[in-house]
Amino acid sequence: MELELTGLHDSLTAPVSESMNFLNEIAHRFPDAISLAAGRPFEGFFDLADVPRYFDIYRRHLTDRLDGDEAAVRRTLLQYGRTKGIIHELIAEHLRVDEGITVDPQALVVTVGCQEALWLTLRALRRDERDVLLAVTPSYVGVHGAARMADLPVLPVREAADGIDLDDLVAVVRRAKAEGLNPRACYVIPDFANPSGIRLGRETRERLLAIAADEDLLLLEDNPYGLFGDPAGPPTLKALDRRGQVVYLGSFAKTGLPGARVGYLIADQKVSGAPAGQDLFADQLAKLKSMLTVNTSPIAQAVIGGKLLAHGHSLRAANARETETYRGNLNQVLAGLEKRFGELPGVSWNSPTGGFFLLLTVPFAAGDDLLEHSAAAHRVLWTPVHHFYADATPRNVLRLSFSHLRPDEIEEGLDRLADFVREQIR
Amino acid sequence: MELELTGLHDSLTAPVSESMNFLNEIAHRFPDAISLAAGRPFEGFFDLADVPRYFDIYRRHLTDRLDGDEAAVRRTLLQYGRTKGIIHELIAEHLRVDEGITVDPQALVVTVGCQEALWLTLRALRRDERDVLLAVTPSYVGVHGAARMADLPVLPVREAADGIDLDDLVAVVRRAKAEGLNPRACYVIPDFANPSGIRLGRETRERLLAIAADEDLLLLEDNPYGLFGDPAGPPTLKALDRRGQVVYLGSFAKTGLPGARVGYLIADQKVSGAPAGQDLFADQLAKLKSMLTVNTSPIAQAVIGGKLLAHGHSLRAANARETETYRGNLNQVLAGLEKRFGELPGVSWNSPTGGFFLLLTVPFAAGDDLLEHSAAAHRVLWTPVHHFYADATPRNVLRLSFSHLRPDEIEEGLDRLADFVREQIR
Repeated sequence: MELELTGLHDSLTAPVSESMNFLNEIAHRFPDAISLAAGRPFEGFFDLADVPRYFDIYRRHLTDRLDGDEAAVRRTLLQYGRTKGIIHELIAEHLRVDEGITVDPQALVVTVGCQEALWLTLRALRRDERDVLLAVTPSYVGVHGAARMADLPVLPVREAADGIDLDDLVAVVRRAKAEGLNPRACYVIPDFANPSGIRLGRETRERLLAIAADEDLLLLEDNPYGLFGDPAGPPTLKALDRRGQVVYLGSFAKTGLPGARVGYLIADQKVSGAPAGQDLFADQLAKLKSMLTVNTSPIAQAVIGGKLLAHGHSLRAANARETETYRGNLNQVLAGLEKRFGELPGVSWNSPTGGFFLLLTVPFAAGDDLLEHSAAAHRVLWTPVHHFYADATPRNVLRLSFSHLRPDEIEEGLDRLADFVREQIR
Repeated sequence: MELELTGLHDSLTAPVSESMNFLNEIAHRFPDAISLAAGRPFEGFFDLADVPRYFDIYRRHLTDRLDGDEAAVRRTLLQYGRTKGIIHELIAEHLRVDEGITVDPQALVVTVGCQEALWLTLRALRRDERDVLLAVTPSYVGVHGAARMADLPVLPVREAADGIDLDDLVAVVRRAKAEGLNPRACYVIPDFANPSGIRLGRETRERLLAIAADEDLLLLEDNPYGLFGDPAGPPTLKALDRRGQVVYLGSFAKTGLPGARVGYLIADQKVSGAPAGQDLFADQLAKLKSMLTVNTSPIAQAVIGGKLLAHGHSLRAANARETETYRGNLNQVLAGLEKRFGELPGVSWNSPTGGFFLLLTVPFAAGDDLLEHSAAAHRVLWTPVHHFYADATPRNVLRLSFSHLRPDEIEEGLDRLADFVREQIR
């Protein structure tokens, strides 16, 4: 039996779906290229022995918690289990220690990475064809993908130097409402956004929360990189959230282990009309999860739980070396760009204070065709920014990532990038 | 901010969503009840030491495969990874050894349990509001849930003594087409169905495949229990599939470890209009997965991969003790029902030859209210069959499960059940 692509769900022919595929595929086609494209965590400190070690630390913790009942420990770790997860209390403690967030563990759902947390939230918020999502744009490819798969259109909100153009946010919300649409939520990465690396200031955060309350809008706060930033930086939106405007989307892919595929969400909003005991938004999202992935592997959760326990619930403490690496890489890239492009008209870049990414502006439209050429002729990869707009219009901006590279790879990668850019300008 | 239940996705207020919740919740409210309701695998052979042991076996295998490149091994197991999974070749070999299924490993996608495999398939097949799913009914609660969350209506196809009423299947398909609907697929558990325990005969399988080809219908074959059956039993639909009618949904929850949350799908259909290298249905499903859960934890995959390697790729060999347990339990339940209900008018049951379940017919409508009473007054749980019809109409049928119980629990559970049934008849 043959199927037709046009007969399948339309997310499969959307530009975002092609984006994810193209970006994966080009890395495989040019394995000797240096990738300033991949947003993967640094793997220099990865240790396979951590897996059984963390698993065992969590197992012993659980044995204590269950008063030595070994059968209950086996059941918890190996059998089907609680839909909302088993390490919720450890995560709540981590949030208290590292982020100053106070959360009822019952408002947490442990998910298969942050991507499932995002998708569940979008699916729940999509009631009918009037519902729309707002997203500070350019934005993470995965939010476009998840929204498309939840049949939820995305209305872009302009990014500004301080992270979000709040006037545009209000204008987009009001225009949507005037058109009979129902803006449900705004997706934002307040700390070192993907792709721009921008971090929202404290005042912008407070104003954003006030607007959300005024406009009856949820904020979906995605925070995979914040923990590597200066601890004296601004609090998360969730830590400032007094009125339940924020659904917090958490990831352990960068701070824990990508291979565990464990993330979580905080959804402490009350749901009116729901039965007692299911009246948190987290309970409703867990119901969706029970129909999607049933529960998150307790074995994978135990590995993350063990890492939390091994470091006094602090992933900031656990990631001291990684944090230093990312800061060093960022500084090296900023200095390297200055050295290579400082005098070049039409070339500029922003200067994030943390995170995995920055944006490089060039005096030519940098689309997929030029990326192909860059990969083939210069053996360097970067990400055309149009992928973060979910369209196919090349723009004069490249996303550069530097999280997973060693210093020598950064220098060589920037040399190759400079050759490519100078060739295009000539 | 408060949300309203009626403002969220309508799967959250569907009967199926209430079903899953009610059935979970009642087990927690009556912890001392014996559960003839839970479809969980027997955990008497669970061993926590298996987790690091299997992980290590797979790690060594991978090290060999990667010619000793330890950095590549660490990257494969701990970093973000291949969307379609890393143990696809081991699964293909398992299918060859245990099921006589020959499959291109590229047509496999490793998923977060079988439930994600099911959901991805349903989402892909739901293009617009004309698309519908057929399901042999009563059917697994999770298929109703997944379909609802994919906005795909389910048209029931009658079950028959040999597993499926093929005349009804043809009638339902033709009636749907006459109404302008687009029947995309029929969901079926050919081996020891949930809830009925029925196994389709070889001839029924051949006729089902022929009808699917005639009517341009995919068959979604879900097979969590087949491996515990008589190896001389009929082949899977996928093993008989000559024309690519079958998407096979595989689970390791019962044969591997539930806590790994690893399943898979085989989707070897060609997709016309798709670019080269993405022209298998599996490739399209992987694109959806990349927007949903990104990839299945390679740590969890390694645990299952290690179990496959430890037993020569044969889960039939790995489950010799479990198979004996399930057969013993089934025989004990059949004998126990005969002993307790053999003389009782209006009470009857079917006699599956394997699996985790059977159906008990009683001379009264057995709904959730009676289950409450049974739990509170008789301390025994069972599943009202209306949950497998995704409606709220009590019927005269109970699903009994026996997979996870010890012999003494079965006897005691059946005694309590007999007390409850006799009380209702009096």
